[in-house]
Amino acid sequence: MRTPRVESATPVGALPVRVANREFNKLQVEIIREYSPGRFITHNFMSGFTDFDHYKLSKDLDFATWDNYPLGHTLVFLRMKGETKNPFDRVGHPDIISFSHDLYRGVGRGRFWVMEQQAGPVNWAPYNLWPAKGAVRLWTWQAFAHGAEVVSYFRWRQAPFAQEQMHSGLLAPDSAPYPGYHEVKQVFEELKNIDINEPVESEVALVFDYETAWVFSIQPHGEGVNYIDLVFRFYSALRRLGLNVDIVPPGSSLDGYKMIVVPSLAIVEGGGSGHVQKIRRSSRTWPKKRKKTETFQIPPEMPPGLLKEIIPVEVRQVESLGDNVETLVWNGKEYPVSIWREDVDPTITEVIARFKDGFGAIFRKENVFYLAFWPNGDFLVDFFEALSKESGIETKRMPEGVRIQRRGEYVFSFNFTSEEVDLEIPTKVQIVLGDQKIPPYGLLIWKENER
Amino acid sequence: MRTPRVESATPVGALPVRVANREFNKLQVEIIREYSPGRFITHNFMSGFTDFDHYKLSKDLDFATWDNYPLGHTLVFLRMKGETKNPFDRVGHPDIISFSHDLYRGVGRGRFWVMEQQAGPVNWAPYNLWPAKGAVRLWTWQAFAHGAEVVSYFRWRQAPFAQEQMHSGLLAPDSAPYPGYHEVKQVFEELKNIDINEPVESEVALVFDYETAWVFSIQPHGEGVNYIDLVFRFYSALRRLGLNVDIVPPGSSLDGYKMIVVPSLAIVEGGGSGHVQKIRRSSRTWPKKRKKTETFQIPPEMPPGLLKEIIPVEVRQVESLGDNVETLVWNGKEYPVSIWREDVDPTITEVIARFKDGFGAIFRKENVFYLAFWPNGDFLVDFFEALSKESGIETKRMPEGVRIQRRGEYVFSFNFTSEEVDLEIPTKVQIVLGDQKIPPYGLLIWKENER
Amino acid sequence: MRTPRVESATPVGALPVRVANREFNKLQVEIIREYSPGRFITHNFMSGFTDFDHYKLSKDLDFATWDNYPLGHTLVFLRMKGETKNPFDRVGHPDIISFSHDLYRGVGRGRFWVMEQQAGPVNWAPYNLWPAKGAVRLWTWQAFAHGAEVVSYFRWRQAPFAQEQMHSGLLAPDSAPYPGYHEVKQVFEELKNIDINEPVESEVALVFDYETAWVFSIQPHGEGVNYIDLVFRFYSALRRLGLNVDIVPPGSSLDGYKMIVVPSLAIVEGGGSGHVQKIRRSSRTWPKKRKKTETFQIPPEMPPGLLKEIIPVEVRQVESLGDNVETLVWNGKEYPVSIWREDVDPTITEVIARFKDGFGAIFRKENVFYLAFWPNGDFLVDFFEALSKESGIETKRMPEGVRIQRRGEYVFSFNFTSEEVDLEIPTKVQIVLGDQKIPPYGLLIWKENER
Repeated sequence: MRTPRVESATPVGALPVRVANREFNKLQVEIIREYSPGRFITHNFMSGFTDFDHYKLSKDLDFATWDNYPLGHTLVFLRMKGETKNPFDRVGHPDIISFSHDLYRGVGRGRFWVMEQQAGPVNWAPYNLWPAKGAVRLWTWQAFAHGAEVVSYFRWRQAPFAQEQMHSGLLAPDSAPYPGYHEVKQVFEELKNIDINEPVESEVALVFDYETAWVFSIQPHGEGVNYIDLVFRFYSALRRLGLNVDIVPPGSSLDGYKMIVVPSLAIVEGGGSGHVQKIRRSSRTWPKKRKKTETFQIPPEMPPGLLKEIIPVEVRQVESLGDNVETLVWNGKEYPVSIWREDVDPTITEVIARFKDGFGAIFRKENVFYLAFWPNGDFLVDFFEALSKESGIETKRMPEGVRIQRRGEYVFSFNFTSEEVDLEIPTKVQIVLGDQKIPPYGLLIWKENER
Repeated sequence: MRTPRVESATPVGALPVRVANREFNKLQVEIIREYSPGRFITHNFMSGFTDFDHYKLSKDLDFATWDNYPLGHTLVFLRMKGETKNPFDRVGHPDIISFSHDLYRGVGRGRFWVMEQQAGPVNWAPYNLWPAKGAVRLWTWQAFAHGAEVVSYFRWRQAPFAQEQMHSGLLAPDSAPYPGYHEVKQVFEELKNIDINEPVESEVALVFDYETAWVFSIQPHGEGVNYIDLVFRFYSALRRLGLNVDIVPPGSSLDGYKMIVVPSLAIVEGGGSGHVQKIRRSSRTWPKKRKKTETFQIPPEMPPGLLKEIIPVEVRQVESLGDNVETLVWNGKEYPVSIWREDVDPTITEVIARFKDGFGAIFRKENVFYLAFWPNGDFLVDFFEALSKESGIETKRMPEGVRIQRRGEYVFSFNFTSEEVDLEIPTKVQIVLGDQKIPPYGLLIWKENER
Repeated sequence: MRTPRVESATPVGALPVRVANREFNKLQVEIIREYSPGRFITHNFMSGFTDFDHYKLSKDLDFATWDNYPLGHTLVFLRMKGETKNPFDRVGHPDIISFSHDLYRGVGRGRFWVMEQQAGPVNWAPYNLWPAKGAVRLWTWQAFAHGAEVVSYFRWRQAPFAQEQMHSGLLAPDSAPYPGYHEVKQVFEELKNIDINEPVESEVALVFDYETAWVFSIQPHGEGVNYIDLVFRFYSALRRLGLNVDIVPPGSSLDGYKMIVVPSLAIVEGGGSGHVQKIRRSSRTWPKKRKKTETFQIPPEMPPGLLKEIIPVEVRQVESLGDNVETLVWNGKEYPVSIWREDVDPTITEVIARFKDGFGAIFRKENVFYLAFWPNGDFLVDFFEALSKESGIETKRMPEGVRIQRRGEYVFSFNFTSEEVDLEIPTKVQIVLGDQKIPPYGLLIWKENER
C-alpha cells in the first residue's frame, strides 16, 4: 500500500523555516562586498527547486545564474509525472529548459547567466545518454534567445578521478575534444555576426510564487498536487502558441503585459501595494485560487479570499482527484481533468463551462477568468488561443518540439526533434542564420523587418 | 528487487506483545468508573485494524464504536490488493463498510455506534474526493440497517486551521451548510416514521479471530497472505447472496445459526469449552486450517490440529503462490486460485473437488467442508449458493454494488452505484421508504409482512 | 520520483573495504588448522553474492560449497531484471542454477559441494511454491553433472518451531517423508550404476571478476548496470549452445580453452604475470572494456587501458541507456540494445557491425572481438554460434529449458520444462539412464562412445 503524505501535522510551523535561507545568503554577501568590493556576486540556482524564495534571496545578488542539464532535468521531470515515454531523451524538452531561463531572468531582474551548461553525458541522472549531435549548440543559442548574458560549460576537461569521473566536459581526460567542444566553437563563430544584447520582451506575464509552492508541498491534499507541475502546464501551453513569457513574482508591476496568468496564488496579501492591486490595474488576467491566509489558514471570507476583488467567485469545496477523470466541456469539446477540482458557487459570476456532472468549471467576469480545476495542456492551448484571438494577441501553434522566441529584433526558431522541420515563416523577414528547412536539432534565426 | 518480509526471526515472541493493550485499557476504565460512575465508556475503533484483540479489550467497555470513512477505507483496501480500478470512488464499497458494522456489532456484543461518520471530502487518503450526492444519507441508513444505535458525524464545522483544515464537516468554516448537512437533515425527517430498535439477526456466523490475524502477519510465508483479505472474500461472497452475517469471536456460542464460516483458525484451544466443542455442536460448518499451537509451533498431530475432530483432514505441505495461478475445478467449472494452497492427504476424507494438476481442493465429511486454498469471490458465491440450496437457506444474487440487510421487520436495499437499479422485490411487502426503482446512491426500505 | 544511486561520492575508498573479509576468514582457518588438524575446512557460499572476492578467500579453504535454492534464486533474479513471467516457477531456471555450480567449481579450484540443497518449499522468497514432481532429483543430477562431489539437503526434518518452521526438509515435522525424500532415494539407487568421478572439462573459459562487480556497484552510471546481469547474459548464451563453461578468475591460466569470454574487466593489472599476458597467449578471446585503474580512475591512456595490447580500440565516450533502445545491425539482422553503449574510435580497428545511428558496435582484430555495448541473449547466441562455426567448435541450439552438460564420458540432458522433450541425440551413444523422450522435469544420461 502506498501511503503518500498528503497532510501535515503542523502546517503553520512549516512556512517560516523556508524563509531563513535569504538571511544566511545576505550575511555572506555583506562580508564579500566589504572585503572584496567592486565585484559582482551571484549564485547558481537549480532546475525545479523551490525550497527557498529565489526572488527575495536574489535581491542581494547582482544577477542570477543557473545550471542547465537538459537530459537529466527532462527525465526527472517526466518521471515525477509518471510518464515513461521520452521523445526528447537526447536533447531535453524545450519548455522544461526555457522555463528555467525565463524564471531566472525574472529572479535576476532581467539579468542571468547559465553557469553550468551540460556539454556531454553526465553521471547523476537515472541513466545518462550522450546528447544528440547539435544539442550543445542548440542549448547555447536557446539560452541567448531567452536573454542569457553568458553560457559557461561544465566542465572544461573531464576529471579522471573521484565522484565526477563519469561526468564529461568539453575535453576528454586525455584533452582530446569531445563533440560538444566543436559545437561550442561553431556558436563562437556564429555569434560574430549576430548582436543579441537587447532585452527580452514578452506579451505574457506568468506569476510564479514560491510561497504557493510551499503551501502545495506542506498540505497537498492528494497525489499529483505539485505546484511546479501546475505552473508548467500553463507555461508550456503559452510556449506552444509561440508566445514570449516573463515569469514574475507576485507584487511586481504588471504594466504593459497583454495577458497575465496566475496558475495559483495561495496566500494573498492585502493593502494598496499588495498583489491584488497590481493585478487589478492590469488589463487581462486569469488568476486562480487563493486558499490560505498568511498563518496557513482558510481565510474567513472563504477562498479565494482577497482575489474576490478581481473576480467574485467563492470556492465552497475542493477535491483531489488523483487519477480519477472528470470531463470538462468547453466550447463544444471535451477535456479530461484529474488531480484537482473545486466546487465554486455558480450563482455569483457567469459560468462559461461546466463539467459533465454539472459542477461549474470556468467562471468569467469581464476580462477575468477563473479555472476551478487542474487543466491539462491540450485544453490550455485551445483556451489561450481563443482568448488571445478575442483580445488581439497573435499566436501560432508550434509543431511538437519546435519553439520560437523573440529577443530584440531577432526571432529564433529551435527544432528539438530528430526530424527536419519545414517551418512556415513570415514572408518579409531577413534570415541571419540557418534555413527555413531546419535540420534535426538545428535552428533558424531571422530579423523581423516589419515588426 | 522487492524484498517482502515473509518470515520472522522470533515468531513465538511476536505473539504476547499484542496482548498488552487490553490491560492498559482496563486500567483506564477502572479509574473512570471509580471517579465518574454511572456513565457509559466506549472507544472508537478503526477499519481493518487488527493490532490488538478488540473482543477482549471491549469486555471492559459498555459498547463499541468505530470511525466510518468509506472513501479512504475503500481506496486503501483496494490498493493493498493491487487494484487500480475503483468503481466506488465517490461512495465506497458497501461490503468494506458493512464488514466493520458487522464486526464491531460483534465486538460490542450487539451494541455499537458510528462515532465518526465521514460527511464530506477528508484530508488523509492518497486522494480525497467529495462524496457522491446522496452518499452521506446512504451511509447513515446503512449503519442503522446493520444495527448502529447512533451515527455521529465528523465534524460539526470544518476547522479553518491546523492539520485538519482540509477535512470537511457538516458546516463549512463560514458555517454555511455543506451538502452532507442537508442529507443528514433528510435522514432525521425520515427516521420519524421508521422504528428501528430491534436487533439484527443473521443466518450466518463468520468466525473472525485476531490471533489468526497476528499469525498471518508474523509469518505470512508469501506475498498476498493477509488475514483481512481472506476474511473479506468470505464475507463479501455471503453479502453478494443477500445473507445477513454476524461476525463472532472463536469460542462464542454458535447456536441458532444456519451456517458457520471459519475462514481460518490458526491456534485452536482444546477442552470442552474450546472452539472445537462449540463448532462441533453447531449444524453446518466450513472451517479452514489450524496451523499453529499456542506457542507458535506446528502442532505435533500436524495441521489442522484439534480441528481434525470436526473434519478428519491432514495438511501435508503448504505453498504460497503469489500471483501464480492454479486452476480449481468444481461442479464442472474452473476457477483461478492464487496466494495459497495446501497439499491435504486425500485418503482420509472425501475429495469433492480437485486442482487440474491433481491435488485435492475441497474435502467433505457430512455437513462439514474444508477448503485447502485461498478462494476467490466468484467461487465462493457459487459455492455458498449451492450449499445454501442444499440446506434450505434462501439466497438471492445481488447486482454489483447493490446490497440488502434485514433488521427486525425491515428489509433495507442500498444502491451504491451511479445508475438507477430496478430491484425485484417480494410481492407482498409494504414499502416504507423509497421506490422499487432505486435511484443512484439511493435506498429502499420495506416491511416483510409475511416473513 | 525514483532516485537510483548511480554515482558515489568517494569511489576510491569504496574498493579496499571489500577486501577485508578474506583476512578475517584466514584468521579463523588458521585457528582451526592448529587445534583441529587433519580436517577439511570449507564455507557455504550463496547465489549471486559478490561482496567479497570468493576466489581469494577460498585459497585458505580446502574446497568450496554453496546453497542451492533454485525457486527463490530464480524468482529474485527475474525480479531484479523487472521480469514478471516465470515459466520456471516450480523448478528454477537451469542456467541460474548451473551458473553457481560452474562459478563455485572455479572458486574451489575444481572441487565443490552443494551444502544446502532445496528439498521442498522454503520460507524466505517473496512467495514459496512446492517444487515440481521430479525437481529434487533433477537438481541433484544437475549438480553432479557440473562436478559436485556431494549434494547435501537442507534439511533432514522440518523443525516445527522458530523462524524456519515453514522451511520444509526431507521429512515432515512428524517424520513422514516429503516427496523430495523419495526422489533423493531414487537418485541414491541410480548412482549405483553410474561412476561420475571424472572432472568437468569445458571448451569455454568465462572470466568472472569480483573487482569488476565492485566497480559496477560503486558507480553504475545508469539503471540496469549490474555485473551479474551482464555476465549471466554471456553465460546463458553459451549454455543455450550446448557448451560446457568454466568460470575462472582473471590471471588464471587460459591454456587449452577454445574460446575465452571476458564480459567485462574493469581494472587490468600490468606486467608479465598480469591478465593481459594470460589473455594474449590464448587463442580466441572476446574481451570487453577496461575502465578503471587500481585507484578507481579512468586510465591515462583511456579505456580499455592495457587491454589495448590485445585489441587496439579506444573508448571515447560511454552512455547508460536505461530502457532506451538503440538498434544494432549485425550479419543482416537487427537486435535491440539497452543499458549501455560505448563510442569507440572507429579508425583504429576494423568495425564489423554498427548501430543504425552510425556508431560502431563490434570491433575485430584477427581472432579478438570487442563488443561496445550491453548485448542481449538472442544476439549472443547468434554471435557465439557464428564464431564457433568459424573456429571449429561444435555447438547445438538447445530448446528453451533444456540443457546438456558433459562430465567425463557422460553426457547429461536435463528437461526443466513441464512438457515432454523429444531430444535429438547422436546415433552411436549408449544410454545409461532415461529415454530419448525426456519426461517433464526428467533427465537422460548417455555415454559418448566415439567422442
